[in-house]
Amino acid sequence: MKTAASTAAMGIIPVKGLSRTQTGSQPAAAVKGKMRLSYRPYELQLRHVFTIANSSRTTTPVVLTEIEYDGVVGYGEASMPPYLGETQASVIEFLKKVNLDQFSSPFELEDILTYIDKIAENNTAAKASVDIALHDLTGKIMGQPWHKIWGLDAAKAPSTMFTIGIDTPEIVKQKTREDAPLYNILKVKLGRKENEDKEMIEAIRTVTDKPIAVDANQGWLDKHYALDMIYWLKEKGIVMIEQPMPKHLLDDAAWITERSPLPVFADESFQRLTDVLRLKGAFHGVNIKLMKCTGMREARKILTTARAANMKVMVGCMTETSCAVSAASQLSPAVDWADLDGNLLIINDVFKGTTVVNGRLTLTDLPGIGVRK
Amino acid sequence: MKTAASTAAMGIIPVKGLSRTQTGSQPAAAVKGKMRLSYRPYELQLRHVFTIANSSRTTTPVVLTEIEYDGVVGYGEASMPPYLGETQASVIEFLKKVNLDQFSSPFELEDILTYIDKIAENNTAAKASVDIALHDLTGKIMGQPWHKIWGLDAAKAPSTMFTIGIDTPEIVKQKTREDAPLYNILKVKLGRKENEDKEMIEAIRTVTDKPIAVDANQGWLDKHYALDMIYWLKEKGIVMIEQPMPKHLLDDAAWITERSPLPVFADESFQRLTDVLRLKGAFHGVNIKLMKCTGMREARKILTTARAANMKVMVGCMTETSCAVSAASQLSPAVDWADLDGNLLIINDVFKGTTVVNGRLTLTDLPGIGVRK
Repeated sequence: MKTAASTAAMGIIPVKGLSRTQTGSQPAAAVKGKMRLSYRPYELQLRHVFTIANSSRTTTPVVLTEIEYDGVVGYGEASMPPYLGETQASVIEFLKKVNLDQFSSPFELEDILTYIDKIAENNTAAKASVDIALHDLTGKIMGQPWHKIWGLDAAKAPSTMFTIGIDTPEIVKQKTREDAPLYNILKVKLGRKENEDKEMIEAIRTVTDKPIAVDANQGWLDKHYALDMIYWLKEKGIVMIEQPMPKHLLDDAAWITERSPLPVFADESFQRLTDVLRLKGAFHGVNIKLMKCTGMREARKILTTARAANMKVMVGCMTETSCAVSAASQLSPAVDWADLDGNLLIINDVFKGTTVVNGRLTLTDLPGIGVRK
Repeated sequence: MKTAASTAAMGIIPVKGLSRTQTGSQPAAAVKGKMRLSYRPYELQLRHVFTIANSSRTTTPVVLTEIEYDGVVGYGEASMPPYLGETQASVIEFLKKVNLDQFSSPFELEDILTYIDKIAENNTAAKASVDIALHDLTGKIMGQPWHKIWGLDAAKAPSTMFTIGIDTPEIVKQKTREDAPLYNILKVKLGRKENEDKEMIEAIRTVTDKPIAVDANQGWLDKHYALDMIYWLKEKGIVMIEQPMPKHLLDDAAWITERSPLPVFADESFQRLTDVLRLKGAFHGVNIKLMKCTGMREARKILTTARAANMKVMVGCMTETSCAVSAASQLSPAVDWADLDGNLLIINDVFKGTTVVNGRLTLTDLPGIGVRK
C-alpha cells in the first residue's frame, strides 16, 4: 500500500470518505525500467440528474489509474455506469491482478494489452484504465499527442453532441435554451412511450432547429414502429439514430437499416473489435466507447476495420473525467460523429484536456492523451 | 532542380550515367514548417540472376526519396520490378505532381496520404516512396522506431525466408549448401512444369530438411493439380504456399484453401486494403508488400483488418535497399511469416538497417524506419 506521502508525491488527490485500503498500487517501489501501476476510486458528481430510458442517477463511480515509468506518469480512468456491471470494487480487484513487471517497456503495448485482456473476461472499463494510462505514458515519452501519432489532424475534430436529459417539456425547453447556443448538435435519449418521445423532440424544436441525434437505447420493440418513428424523426431534423431496438435483435436491426432514411448505429449491440464484421449489414455504423472496447488501442483497430468494411464510426463515452474523454477525443478527427460530453456533465473533474469551443472538440497539444491535472 | 552541392549536402550519392534532369526536388528551398520532397533514380545490382516463373534479370530500378522538415530528413524508396508496370520515369513523373506545401505538418499522415493516393490511379511504389519517407521523418521527430510506435516488440520479429533461385539441380544444391545454414526457412518459386518443380524441391531436400515456403507465382492452372502438388509439398516439409493459381481465379483459390493441408496465401491476388475482406474465404492469408499497398500506413491497416477477419498475414518485399526492407520489417513482429530478403540480394545497398542474425530479422533501435546511410 502507498503511504500518504507517496500518494501526495504522485499527485494523487486523497478522496474524502475512502479508506486507504480502497486505493492501491503494485508493491514494488518505483524502479528504473519497471512500470508501476497505482489506482484509487473516485466519485463523479453529476451536474444534473441523469436519466435514460430505465434509470436515473446523480453520481458515477470511477477508478483513476496512474502508470509510472522512468519518472514519467501516464493517467488512466475506468468509468462504471451502474447498468454495465463493473464497480469500483471489481475494477480494483482486477487491477490487483495486473503484473507489469514481466514487461520491460511500456511500448510493448500489443503484448501488454493482450495479457491484460486475458486476465479475466469482461472487465472492459478496468482494462481501459490500463490502456489509457499506457497510451498517456508512451505518448509523453514520444512527446506527441496520440492524434498526431495516429496521423490525424486535430483541426478535423468534429462537433460533439450534447445530451438534453429526459424531463418535462418545460424543463426540456429551459435546458435547450441554455445549452443549444453552445453546441452544434444536440442528442436526445428516446425509447419511452410514443407520446413521451415525440413530446421531447417537439419541446426542443420550439427552441432550436439545430441538428439532433437520437439514441433509442433499445427502447423500441417493434421494427415497423421503429421505422415509422425514424421517418417521423427525419421530418423533425434528426440526423442519425442509435440502437433503435434491443441489442440481440440483429435481423430486425438489419431490416430497419435497409429501409432507414437516417444512418443507424449500433450502441448496445456493439462492444468490441470482434463484433464489427458481424454487425456489417445490421447497422450503418458502430459507436466506439473506450470503456466497452478496452481502450484506445482496440478503438483504433475498430476504426480501421469498420472503414475497411465501409461502415460509419462514431465515438462516444460514459460519464467520465476529462482523462477518458480526452483519450477518446484523440480518435475523433477520424470519425463521422462524436458524442464526448461526459466530462461536461460533472462538477468535480480532476483533469483539464480536450474542451468544447463553439461546439467543436478542441484537442490540446499536450503529449499522450492531452491532459494535465 | 537541386545543385550538385545541395545534393551532396543532403547525403545523396550521385548516380553514374544519370543526367541531372532525372533527379528532382520540389522548387522551394528548405523552409521552416514546410516539407521538402526530393528524389533520384538508382539501379540495384543483383547478387545473382533473379529468375521467377516467367522472367530473369540482373538489376532492379528504384527511386530513392527524401522528405526534409525542420532539419530532419526522412528516407523513402520506390522499387519497380519490371513486371509490375512502374518505371523510374513513371515514379518521377508522379513525384513531380506531389505538393506537400498544402500541409503544415508531416504528422497529418492520414490527410497527406489520402491526397497522395488521389493524385493518380495505381503508382503504388511511387506512393510508397512518399509514405516511407514520411514515416521515417515522423518517427525521427518522435525519437522512436515505428515498431515501438505501433506497440510491437522487436524481439518477436520472425525469421525471414530466403529465396533459393530457380536453376539446375546441381546449382540449386550448391546454393542451398551456402545459404541454408544462414536461414531458418527457405523459399522456392515454383509454378513451372511438374518435373521441374519437383526437381527443385528434391534438390534442396538432398541438402537440408529446414522448412520451405513455396510461391507458385500463379503457375498452376488446374485446381486439382494444384491441390495434388500441395499434398506432395506437405510431405516434403513445405510449410506454406503462396498464390497457387492465377490471380483472378478466386473460386478455384477458395476450393483449394478449403482443402489444403498447408496455409494458402494471396500474393498476386492481393494488393490493397480494399481487397482484404473480399479475399476472406479464398485464402487463409495475404502477403503485404509496401510497394503494392502504397506503404506502411496502409500495411498497418491491412494487418488490423486481416486480424479482425481471422486471416493470416505475411509481409514480403521486392528487390529493395535496406530502406524499404527496414520499413516493412517494422511490422514484422506482428505477422505470421516474413519474406524480407530483398536487400540481401543486392550488392550496392545504400542503407544499413534491419539485418538477419541467425536467420531472424533483427531490427535496429534507430528511430523512424530504423536505418542510417
